[in-house]
Amino acid sequence: MASLTQQHLHSHFLGGARLPQSNSRPCPARVRMSLQENAPSLAVVGVTGAVGQEFLSVLADRDFPYRSIKMLASKRSAGQNIAFQGRSYVVEELTEDSFNGVDIALFSAGGSISKEFGPLAVDRGAIVVDNSSAFRMQDGVPLVIPEVNPEAMEGIKVGKGKGALIANPNCSTIICLVAATPLHRRSNVLRMVVSTYQAASGAGAAAMRELEQQTHEVLAGKPPTCKIFQRQYAFNLFSHNSSVLPNGYNEEEMKLVKETRKIWNNNDVKVTATCIRVPVMRAHAESVNLQFENPLDEDTARDILRNAPGVVVIDDRASNNFPTPLEVSNKDDVAVGRIRRDVSQDGKYGLDIFVCGDQIRKGAALNAVQIAEMLL
Amino acid sequence: MASLTQQHLHSHFLGGARLPQSNSRPCPARVRMSLQENAPSLAVVGVTGAVGQEFLSVLADRDFPYRSIKMLASKRSAGQNIAFQGRSYVVEELTEDSFNGVDIALFSAGGSISKEFGPLAVDRGAIVVDNSSAFRMQDGVPLVIPEVNPEAMEGIKVGKGKGALIANPNCSTIICLVAATPLHRRSNVLRMVVSTYQAASGAGAAAMRELEQQTHEVLAGKPPTCKIFQRQYAFNLFSHNSSVLPNGYNEEEMKLVKETRKIWNNNDVKVTATCIRVPVMRAHAESVNLQFENPLDEDTARDILRNAPGVVVIDDRASNNFPTPLEVSNKDDVAVGRIRRDVSQDGKYGLDIFVCGDQIRKGAALNAVQIAEMLL
Repeated sequence: MASLTQQHLHSHFLGGARLPQSNSRPCPARVRMSLQENAPSLAVVGVTGAVGQEFLSVLADRDFPYRSIKMLASKRSAGQNIAFQGRSYVVEELTEDSFNGVDIALFSAGGSISKEFGPLAVDRGAIVVDNSSAFRMQDGVPLVIPEVNPEAMEGIKVGKGKGALIANPNCSTIICLVAATPLHRRSNVLRMVVSTYQAASGAGAAAMRELEQQTHEVLAGKPPTCKIFQRQYAFNLFSHNSSVLPNGYNEEEMKLVKETRKIWNNNDVKVTATCIRVPVMRAHAESVNLQFENPLDEDTARDILRNAPGVVVIDDRASNNFPTPLEVSNKDDVAVGRIRRDVSQDGKYGLDIFVCGDQIRKGAALNAVQIAEMLL
Repeated sequence: MASLTQQHLHSHFLGGARLPQSNSRPCPARVRMSLQENAPSLAVVGVTGAVGQEFLSVLADRDFPYRSIKMLASKRSAGQNIAFQGRSYVVEELTEDSFNGVDIALFSAGGSISKEFGPLAVDRGAIVVDNSSAFRMQDGVPLVIPEVNPEAMEGIKVGKGKGALIANPNCSTIICLVAATPLHRRSNVLRMVVSTYQAASGAGAAAMRELEQQTHEVLAGKPPTCKIFQRQYAFNLFSHNSSVLPNGYNEEEMKLVKETRKIWNNNDVKVTATCIRVPVMRAHAESVNLQFENPLDEDTARDILRNAPGVVVIDDRASNNFPTPLEVSNKDDVAVGRIRRDVSQDGKYGLDIFVCGDQIRKGAALNAVQIAEMLL
């Protein structure tokens, strides 16, 4: 089976090309290099989805060591062939026995699959890194961005014979906090006002295909086919498609509010968010307004961000060059720009920044694989 | 000459169709109805541009009375024919003599044309309603949104034999303040944090064509043609293309900051903005976070907005139905939704709202024609 990202995102210009990673390690002979006898055995759950496919890309890009890897998906996808690092694998149906002998299981198959099979995998001794929202806010489950709060998963290691659950935060939270945390550490964020510009990929590969198909249709003057979102997406934007809660926020927005508190281990931080889906393929953008307890001028903020892990600063005012979703697509780093003192706040207590990050990569698969790396 | 909007926005789905106006007056026999002997003589400057064409549409839709109308543009466009209300007009080259006998001149030909010809028109006794930024912040020039501050142009009337300049605010400011002002009147806005999602139309008809052309190219796997913005726009977004000022804000953002103060006649109001161009054809969206001096609960806010002039509330949480740029395209009203108490502010002192408005129509042509109506 060809990679879904190859199938549906053939064009570099759509945001789908596999650009070189600025921070990937050189690997002159990558094929099968990661296959090692004493390495952990892996399972990828939801391997045929957009994030599942990206798990494989990231594992290969980072030479993640493994002695075996199981490709798991629903019954519907079982039997497909997946080529990975020079070998051919058959997709197996996910069952409760799938996790026998598995050390690390990367899950991205939706919350209900995680709820059902995550605890089963843990019982079998696997460490589950779960990309769904199922366990994120559960007490005792670390919610981890490796650049931000690696200490939250202290003591969880492969080889201790003990299963565990670790949750991957929501994509918007990861991208926001990779940029905001270095500033928070310096000056203590009191309040964040976030507005997002979210890509199709957050709703899966089918949503990406729908955006592409709709755009073809609309350019031809035809009515757009609306299956995933129930409305036109091409040349349009709309409030995030997650359910709206009684307080008027949608689930995506409340993830930003709540996950930030858990990741920063700080229940006092005030966050509000407005999450919007824009017709972009696979990278999110976020406009983030920050209010600090302690003063922070913009030059210091820029220096802090230039030295922050997982961050690249693109902030060239003279040439109007700032982060865009297209240029961070398929990149590991979160790009930050438009760094400026907020004129609506007194003195040096406020900053505005604009952040872009690849939703599938750092927003999901890369972050999970980075967590897995810390387990070794 | 066919209308530019017809030429380039053939498709309803692109955002270009001429939908019925929810608030247009019925007009069973519209043709030439507006041509009246005792009515003012009009001039439209920049008539072949996107906003110029929309001036004509709005004048027709609203049965604006006139005894004559001059179609003015640059030398390059002079000689073209324009059909308007059943008559054919020849586009004339704009010169200093163009305004002899003109009562009201609607300008939308860029700031430098306004600076050169606006004062000349005023000297000839014309009242200029200028859509450029040339005079907006000039002392003594009213900056007017008819629903918000009609009192600013008190005393300026056709028939007094006296020319005057009136400035049309920037599109983002108009769309934001049509929604925010009714709430401000009730509870006094102390601070606004705005993030915009701005359409191609704000950069003119050529930018709309470029977005369409680029999208064709990208879908075909070809490199996109980048003339207007110097970067890919299709399936991408980027910081607004206006110049970045020494304080790190771009000009578009500082318009929101400064124009709000002038229109509200309130130098204390704090505003910050991040302005982003998204691949949408002709309507802007804005995420607006509001901090009030006096408490305002969300139900009251919704009631206030339902009764506000120029506003339609679309705020259906159960069906996830909120404003989108596509559905306000070619509409007069600004749509407001996602009205909710801001969880990052104490008590009832904060609200988040999401606003969409047609950039060419209420953001430019309609607002100018509404100003002209107040001159009669």
